[in-house]
Order: sequence, then C-alpha cells, then structure tokens
Amino acid sequence: MFELKERDGLARICELTTRHGKVTTPVLLPVVNPNQLTITPREMRERFGVQMLITNSYIIWNDKKLRERIEGSDVHGLLDFDGPIMTDSGTFQNYVYGDVEVDPKEIVQFQASIGTDVGTILDVFSEPSFTKEETQKAVDVTLERAKASVALKGDMLLAGPVQGGIYPDLRERCAKELSALDFDVHPIGGVVPLLEGYRYSDIAEIIITSKMYLDPSRPVHLFGAGHPMVFPMAALLGCDMFDSASYAKYARQERLMYPTGTRFLADLHDLACDCPSCSRTSIAELRQMDPAERMRRIAEHNLHISLREINKVKNAIHEGSIWELVEMRARAHPALLQALKVLKRHAHFLEKTEPASRKGAFFYCGPESCHRPTVTRYRERYFQRYRKPETKVLVGFSEATKPYGRTYAKEIEAVSSKTHASFVVASFFGPAPIELDEYYPIAQSVIPGEVDAEAAELFRETMERHAHTHGYPLAVMWDGVETLKFLEEVAPGGGKFDVDLLRVRAVLDMQFGKGAADMLDGRKVEIFKSPRTGKIRTVQIDGVHALSMRAHDGRFTLKMDGARLLMKAIPPPAMRVVVEDEPAEFSRKGTNVFAKFVAGCDPEIRPGDDVMVVNTKGDLVAVGRATMNSDEMKAFKRGIAVRVKDIED
Amino acid sequence: MFELKERDGLARICELTTRHGKVTTPVLLPVVNPNQLTITPREMRERFGVQMLITNSYIIWNDKKLRERIEGSDVHGLLDFDGPIMTDSGTFQNYVYGDVEVDPKEIVQFQASIGTDVGTILDVFSEPSFTKEETQKAVDVTLERAKASVALKGDMLLAGPVQGGIYPDLRERCAKELSALDFDVHPIGGVVPLLEGYRYSDIAEIIITSKMYLDPSRPVHLFGAGHPMVFPMAALLGCDMFDSASYAKYARQERLMYPTGTRFLADLHDLACDCPSCSRTSIAELRQMDPAERMRRIAEHNLHISLREINKVKNAIHEGSIWELVEMRARAHPALLQALKVLKRHAHFLEKTEPASRKGAFFYCGPESCHRPTVTRYRERYFQRYRKPETKVLVGFSEATKPYGRTYAKEIEAVSSKTHASFVVASFFGPAPIELDEYYPIAQSVIPGEVDAEAAELFRETMERHAHTHGYPLAVMWDGVETLKFLEEVAPGGGKFDVDLLRVRAVLDMQFGKGAADMLDGRKVEIFKSPRTGKIRTVQIDGVHALSMRAHDGRFTLKMDGARLLMKAIPPPAMRVVVEDEPAEFSRKGTNVFAKFVAGCDPEIRPGDDVMVVNTKGDLVAVGRATMNSDEMKAFKRGIAVRVKDIED
Repeated sequence: MFELKERDGLARICELTTRHGKVTTPVLLPVVNPNQLTITPREMRERFGVQMLITNSYIIWNDKKLRERIEGSDVHGLLDFDGPIMTDSGTFQNYVYGDVEVDPKEIVQFQASIGTDVGTILDVFSEPSFTKEETQKAVDVTLERAKASVALKGDMLLAGPVQGGIYPDLRERCAKELSALDFDVHPIGGVVPLLEGYRYSDIAEIIITSKMYLDPSRPVHLFGAGHPMVFPMAALLGCDMFDSASYAKYARQERLMYPTGTRFLADLHDLACDCPSCSRTSIAELRQMDPAERMRRIAEHNLHISLREINKVKNAIHEGSIWELVEMRARAHPALLQALKVLKRHAHFLEKTEPASRKGAFFYCGPESCHRPTVTRYRERYFQRYRKPETKVLVGFSEATKPYGRTYAKEIEAVSSKTHASFVVASFFGPAPIELDEYYPIAQSVIPGEVDAEAAELFRETMERHAHTHGYPLAVMWDGVETLKFLEEVAPGGGKFDVDLLRVRAVLDMQFGKGAADMLDGRKVEIFKSPRTGKIRTVQIDGVHALSMRAHDGRFTLKMDGARLLMKAIPPPAMRVVVEDEPAEFSRKGTNVFAKFVAGCDPEIRPGDDVMVVNTKGDLVAVGRATMNSDEMKAFKRGIAVRVKDIED
Repeated sequence: MFELKERDGLARICELTTRHGKVTTPVLLPVVNPNQLTITPREMRERFGVQMLITNSYIIWNDKKLRERIEGSDVHGLLDFDGPIMTDSGTFQNYVYGDVEVDPKEIVQFQASIGTDVGTILDVFSEPSFTKEETQKAVDVTLERAKASVALKGDMLLAGPVQGGIYPDLRERCAKELSALDFDVHPIGGVVPLLEGYRYSDIAEIIITSKMYLDPSRPVHLFGAGHPMVFPMAALLGCDMFDSASYAKYARQERLMYPTGTRFLADLHDLACDCPSCSRTSIAELRQMDPAERMRRIAEHNLHISLREINKVKNAIHEGSIWELVEMRARAHPALLQALKVLKRHAHFLEKTEPASRKGAFFYCGPESCHRPTVTRYRERYFQRYRKPETKVLVGFSEATKPYGRTYAKEIEAVSSKTHASFVVASFFGPAPIELDEYYPIAQSVIPGEVDAEAAELFRETMERHAHTHGYPLAVMWDGVETLKFLEEVAPGGGKFDVDLLRVRAVLDMQFGKGAADMLDGRKVEIFKSPRTGKIRTVQIDGVHALSMRAHDGRFTLKMDGARLLMKAIPPPAMRVVVEDEPAEFSRKGTNVFAKFVAGCDPEIRPGDDVMVVNTKGDLVAVGRATMNSDEMKAFKRGIAVRVKDIED
C-alpha cells in the first residue's frame, strides 16, 4: 500500500495506494466539514490540485440529515470528490466537546460502510496536561480499541494513532504495540495543544520517539498539523501526512498563514503574496470586501500557501536539501529554532536513514548545522574506519578552498620532496586527510569564513580526539618555508607523494568499512584518471575493472569484479544484502531487489550505499545501490530495496 | 524629492517624486533593453505593478534606429511607459565591452533631452580586482565628471554613483564629495562582479561605508543588484533602489530565481511556486513549451518573485521585523550568512538609526541576533544610564517567563519581607532589573530555551561588567528558601517592595538619560495603573498629568507638564529638537516639525524617541515623537522630523 520512491533521511517521497487512486506523500489533506464548505472539494481538486481529503465520520454519523444524504451513495458522493478520502472518528471532537457517544467498533464499521479510503479508530486523545496515570489510561484504552477495530476494517485502510502525551515510554509502548497490528497508517495523536502552544520541541521529541518504534513501512500522519511553519521539520522527522482545518479556521479570524508565521490582515501593510487568490486583489480591495467573501479569499490563500510549502518540502527531498530548508524555516519562530536544537540529541538515530551522499552541496546554516547526521557520520567513520598511511610525519593545513589537494598542491609537493609525510586539513567536518578531499561531504560543502562558537568547540574536541587516536611520531601545522626546513632536518628522506593510491585505499575503508582496502593487497592496481578533471575514474585490479569513482561524491561504484575481491576483505554481513534464493536468481539476471524478498542485511548499510547482493548461501549474485537501510528493508512489503547496477556478463 | 515615510533602522520606506509621478521605495527597477523586450513595459505596469523602469541611454544614443524612433517623442514614448524612467549612461557597457566612446557631458545632456526622469553620469566602473591606484583613478575621474555633469542636469534628477572598489577610504572620499554636489540619487557602483562571486561580505562593507558618508536624505541605489537573495540585507543597510536585468538574463539560461537561491529548470522536480506565471502551468508543460515561450514564462516568474520579495521587505519595515527577515534569508547561502556575521562590527553605526522600540517582538534567530543594534543599545544604556536603587542586597534570578515581575512575584515578596533588596534577572539582553521588566526590549522578546555559545559568552561578559559597574554590598543568586534564611540573618530589616516608583525612575533614566528621574525629587508623585493589566498608565507630579506609559513598550509618552519638569533635570541639548523661531510658533499650535526647519538636535535622539521641541531660545513649544535621528533631521529637506503629540492647552 505504501512504497518508498525518493528520500532524504527520514524525509521521504512515497506512494500510497488507495481504492480511489494513488497519492504522493508528503501530502496535506484539507479538512472538509460537510456542513460548512468554505472551499468545495471539487474546487480543491480542480483549482488547488488537492490529492486527498479528510472529513469527520462522527459528524456524519451524528447528523441525521447527512446520514440521509449519504444513503445510497458514499462519502465521495456526499462531498462530490472522487479522490481518496480519509475519515477521522470523533476523537478530536471528544477532546474539544467531551460529548462523543459512539461505540468504538460501530464508528469503524460506519466508516467502512460509507466507502472511506482510510478510516481511523476511536482512540483516546492524550492531552499534554494529563498526568502519567491519565495518559497510561488513554494509551491502554486506545490499544484495546485498536485490537478490536483492526478485525473490522475490511477493504478499508485503517489508521491507528499513537497516543502517549509527553511521556516517551508511553509513546514507545503505544507505537510498538500498534506496529504489531495490521494498521495501514499511523497518525501521531494528541499534538494539537502542543502546536497551539508553540511547543515545537515537545512535538519533535514525540515524532522521533514514535518514528523509532513504528513500523517504518507505514505512513505517519501528524494529526492536526495544518500550519506550513511545521511541515518542513515534521517531514524531516519522517511525517508523511498532514491535515489542515487551519486554512479555514485562521481565515475566520482574518489571519493569513505563511511558512514564516501568521499575520492578522489588520496588521499587514501589503499582501506581498503571489498566490492565485492574492495576486488578483490588493489589500485595500480585500479589506473592503463583503466579510464572507474576504474570509473565503483568505482561506484560499491559506490553502495555496500550505500546499505550496508541501511542494517545497518535496523539492527539497528530491534535491537532498531538506536540512537546509528546515534550518532556514526554523528562523520563523524561536520555538521552532529550539526544536531544531534538540535534534542533536538524536543525531545517531537520524544517521541511520541519512543517505550516503546528497546531490547538492552541504550548506552551513548556523550552529545547528554541525549536528547534522552527515557531520556526525563523517566524524564517527573517520575514527572507526580511516587507517592512516605509514608515514613518519603528519602535516596539517588550515581550512581552504576545495578541493584541498589542489589548493595545497605546491606545499604537498615541497614537503614530500624533503620528508615522508601525510597531510590533513583541519576542516569543518573534522580532520580531512588530503586523500579524502573529494569524498563526500568534504568537497561538497560551503562553510562561511567564520563559523559559530559551538561549531568551533566541537571542531576543537574532534581535533583533540584525532591527536589521541592517530598517533604520528611527528605532527606539525604548515607554517611556510620554516616548516620545510624543520622537516628536512628532523625527518629527512622524501620522495613523491602518491595521492591516487592513498585515495583509493582511504575511500574503500571509509565507504565499505575498515579493512576494505585490503582487497588491493598483493595485487596489481592500475588507476585511470579523467584527462580533463584529473579525477580518478576507474580502478583496475589484476587487469579487471573493479571500481569506478563517481565525480560528484568521490565514492566508488562497485563492479562485480570488485565485489568478488571486496567480499574476501570484509566478512559477512558487511555490505551484504541477503535475498531469498529464488528472487536472487532474478537479481543475478539484473532484476532489482524488492524489499519483500530481503532475508537479511548488514545493519551498517545506509540508503545510497553500494552493496553486494547475495543469496542465502552467501554467493554473490549482483551489486547495486541500496535505497533503504536494514530496518526498512525488513519492514517494507512493496518497492525496491536495492537497485541492481552490475551483474555477471 | 525624497521623503521618509516609515523606517526600521536604516531600512526605510520613502517617497521619491519624479516628473512622472511618485515612487515608493524600496523599489525594483526592471532593466528594459529597448531592442529586446522580454516583457513589455506596458505589461510590467499593468500586470506586474512595476512602478519605475531603468533603460540604458547609451544604447539609445549609440543606435541610429532607436534615435530616429525617439525623435519627436521621448524615452517614455519609445518604451510605451508613462511612469518614471531612470537611465544608465554606458558605464556598465564600458566595463563589459570596453568600447564606450561618448563624451561624459554629452550623455548627460542626451538623457535630459529624451525626457529621462533620473539620469546617470558616465562614471568609471571600479572593479574589485583593481589595484588601489587604478581604483583611485576611477574615483578621481568619476568625481571630475560628477562636478561637470551636475551643472547640466536641468529639470532631470541626476544620479552620482559611489565608486571606490573594495577600498573603504576611497568609497568614503567618493561618498563625501558626491554628497557635497547637487545629486538626487546615489547608486553604489562596481558591485556586479562581487554579486556574481557571492562576495556578500564585501558588498555589505561597501554599502555600510557608502551609507556612513552619503547624505542620508538621498536615495541609494545598489546598481546591478537584481537577485531577490540580496534585497533584504541591502534594504536593512539602507539601499532604497535596485535594478534587475537578472530576471531576463537568468531566464535565458532557464534559471528560476527565488529568495532562497537560483535553480535550473532541469534540476527542479516541481515549480512549487504560486506566482501568476507558475500557477497556470505544470513543470511538465513548461518543459515541453516552445523555448521562446518557456523563456518568457521563466522571466515572468523571476520578475514576480523579485517584486514580491521587495513587498516582503516593505512589510517587514512596516512591522519592524527587518532583522528577523534578514537573519532568516541569510540561510539561503553561507556567503550571505558570512555577510550577516560581519554586521556586528558596525553595531554602533547601525544603532544610530535603530528605532527606540518596535511594534513586534524581538525574535532570536541565531548567534547573530545578539549583535542586533537593539541588544547593543540596551546593554550600553544599562551601563550608562541606569542608577541602582539604594539597597543593601541584590538578588539575581535566572531567565524566566515574561514579565519577570509576575513570574517572580512570590520570591520578591518573600525576600522583601526579610531584607531591603533589589532584584535583577540575568536576561538574554544582559542584566534586567525587575523594575525594567516591561521596558523594551526586555518583555517584548522571544528567546529559545537554549541560546548559542556566542550569545552565552557575550552574556557572561556583560554580567561580569555588571558586577564591576554596580557594586552592591551583597549579591546573591536566588536559590529558594536557603537564600531567604541567609538574607534574614546577614541583612535583616525588610519592608514592602515598591516596584512602581522604581519603575518610573528607571524608565525615566533609561529613556531620557541619566538624571531624568531627578525631575521627581521633592515632588508629590502619584501613579495610576490599569485595573485590568496592573500596568502603569499615567504619572501625576504635583497633581498634574506629566507622563503616560505605553503598554506595548513600557516607555513614557511625554506630556507638556512632564516636559517642563524634565527640562530642569536634563540640561540642553538633551532630548531637545531646536526649531527655527517662526516655524516653532506653528508647532506651539500643533503643527508637526518639518525637517527643513530643524536648527539643531541632541545627537543622542533616535527615531521613535519622545522629544522636547524648543525654539532657538530654548523655550519649550511642544512635545512629540522623533521620526529621525539628528543627522537625518539636518539632511532631509522634505518630510516630518517630529510628530507633535502635546502642546499647551
């Protein structure tokens, strides 16, 4: 029902299949009140490009006239909308008005009977102000109803909301138990009061806890989140669905929504907006309109802006810039910035879904940038995987134009002619050996001249760890010709610096794990470079084409001949995806690996990694690129887990 | 010709009067090439709301056909545009092609002859790669031509560009000498190569140096800046005019402009744009269009987005949030962030135009926020102006919900019952005495729970200075009931804490200068508060209404009776605007003070300050609110310098 198409960490573009067609997520479902159509569903589809709606089944169930109107038809007929429709169940109404009296099973059956595409169980709203006992009760009842409801869903997709208030252990339990049941969508419930109180840090923590324990193959819906201010961060943390009653609610208060906040019409000087609603009206005209028409126009604006922000999020996922978008948008409100700051506590969880490399460059946006999973990963892997060359001397350079090897070419040549040295740049990401200067993210990053105190402090710590970890007999910072004289004196005996072989070895270890470079030992290695760029293109080992280096991220694409050698250097399960034997035979002929056939997987594999596809006996059948990490490969029932790139001729 | 209407620091909304109507700045002038109309000037006016255009007089002068077409008509006829038109002179063409051969005087006369509204002298483009000598030469020739050209301008407004490359002393000299001549507009020239190289820090420095030495009453045009990425920061630094050839140039390369950067159409997944051009086309349709039509559509998008960003800048000026906008937009590119970081070097220059308070709350956006002029000013004035109450003990509280006085009400009462104490909160802005807890910006700010290392360090320095400056016999941080017991023991003798009188005194000193509170000495002071909010509303001194306190910024509005007492407490020129005697008589009857009648002004007055209007003999004629600082009052020929708020009955 849910298939991964594209991703940027936990943020992902997926396809949700319903009886009324496919929906591309992240998706915003406008809330439609069947008694109060500010904008009609038909208009939403035709003029706004809305893919999917949400309406409330309890309102229909509880309203005699609506029930009469729906007789002989269904919810699609009632709303005049032929796309997918999700229904809520009255939980929120119970939270607001406290008078919902419907049997939890009946409301699920009712939703199925009116042709809802995605129904929702009647869960219990866990308010942030609840005590732990009250919250526990809400979770218990929710889980009880969840079990009873799943049996009744029939053809309908069913949503099981994660409750648990602000208690991580209760969210965890709820998420785990719901994941074990046959649900299709997992809303995260109980967040509306937090949204209203700008408690974005709490929301971020709740999303993260839920995502940690939910089945990663199911869409996650941030229930009640309809403000574009929260879409980028919620998407970054893995939310796939949003619903908005806000577009109409804010309009009734004459408030215009923007990704940067909300403004009362009265406080605005100019609409400063190009949306189809605003671009045909001046603010003076809007102010003079009949109130109902003005409200409608503002609702249209709010919906346009909200849908556009979802599209901006999608674009960012496609181009690999979701972090940059989130870090920029976090400046819309200090509470959003605070939420961004708490993400550093979860750097290791976020690292698990972080792609091996991104299309675009890493843009430093502020002190929070130094806790992005890309940075965390580079630092960790440098210490875990990088093996220093066997030289007497280490020469350090300061941050410079990239690639560093070109910037410091003369210095490297001069030092190498006098002594046997290695070279490292004190880069923003940490120690960047010169042979890794084209490896992602070292070269593919733009850092301002002056970084923030927090970044500087983290950098200092990293360099200290570097000094402790990789002991060199002698380490000096480059300081011009004096350094040269000194080195010639204390450690004479230079030669030529062969960065190419060092690069091949260092990238192999960093990309595939410590020891991967041993695949070259005792073999004839030939390196072919692009005459135009001077960059490595291919590596032949013992006369066969084993590896190709990608220009844009400095990582290797594995060939079958390379994989055979690599397998000997790094024992299972390293960099292997195990496929059931029958489908493995298809992959041997070039078929991509579908997630449902994955029998096992190295937990260190990350999306974008070049992996070896093996059958259950461990025989290599193909090489390819992972689109998922190990947890995801195990969970997803649909879609490709590894795109096969090379097979036996 | 140029009148200040609204401002937020150096960023300002002004009205430029031309022979073809008035223009509201900041304004973007699309560049129109008369030989290549991607979008016609008529469409620009009617469909895009373009106020003013710029075209190149040299192209017309140099093109026989265009000269024939313009005969018997003028540049407005040639372009079919009845709004104001600015012309450039060939300087940029000379920089690009190096073959401009026109007499500098002739091109000025030619511009006047074709009915240009704002002409430009033929200055010499000072490239950033120039040596100091080459740049000096460019400045010398520019100034020489400037002097010769001013005499020829006739009815036409004339622009004299500031050159000087990347040399601050040359920019300074050029700005000063041009300001002494009868120019109407000052472009800042020679920045295009810096824009192209993302050298935004250099651009920021150049704008600041130019603004420091230019006549503040003249519009400043950032020549060649047509990318929406730079509008907010350039406007923040006082640029009023921009021109854009980029909208069309980028379109020819199939590049779409956004305030957050530029994207090739080929790299985009979705237009994710609501502008009138994009909202009627999908990206697939755009890609399949005829290339000329596609180019036109992208040009339309680029122009829409650029104009919208100008409107967003204007809105930010109106609502007092230009810093927040700039700090958010600076995340579009690390080079822009770097430029934001260099602004802290100019905090004192920026402070001079910073309004006394803003409408909206101060939003912390990152480490750069702690160098905003509002923060600098609060810290400086706290140390210069605040006088500590005569107590034995100082009790410190940590940052908390605002207003602090309410949050710590119980603790303050408990301590005061045991000992005679003052109270201070260690706020983000520095020491915030409890009696200043409603004073701008203390209460009107939103700071995330966790501030950045740089902010924390600055805060530490400020608190150290605080400890040195205001010596208390005893200072303790509040630590619960233990603190109480300790204080009762070492400094017994409490009573009641009267925050109201302390507040009146502290605000008087902070707002009007150290000593202002002495106006209360030996007088009967009655304080009236709002029964609803508990905030001070009015202060009567010896039975007359002397001061009103504004709820939104905790500052006083001066009444005539208050001003008379205040004058005795703070000697001239403090908080006085001296008006020529004849217009002073009009102000005595309630007429606002026009800048052209200002004879003198306290250099410490800032926009938004409540001031005393006096005649040349120093007699009080009115009280009012300054819209300008002292330098501006002296420079502006048009517009209001002080809005009169109270006069003698």
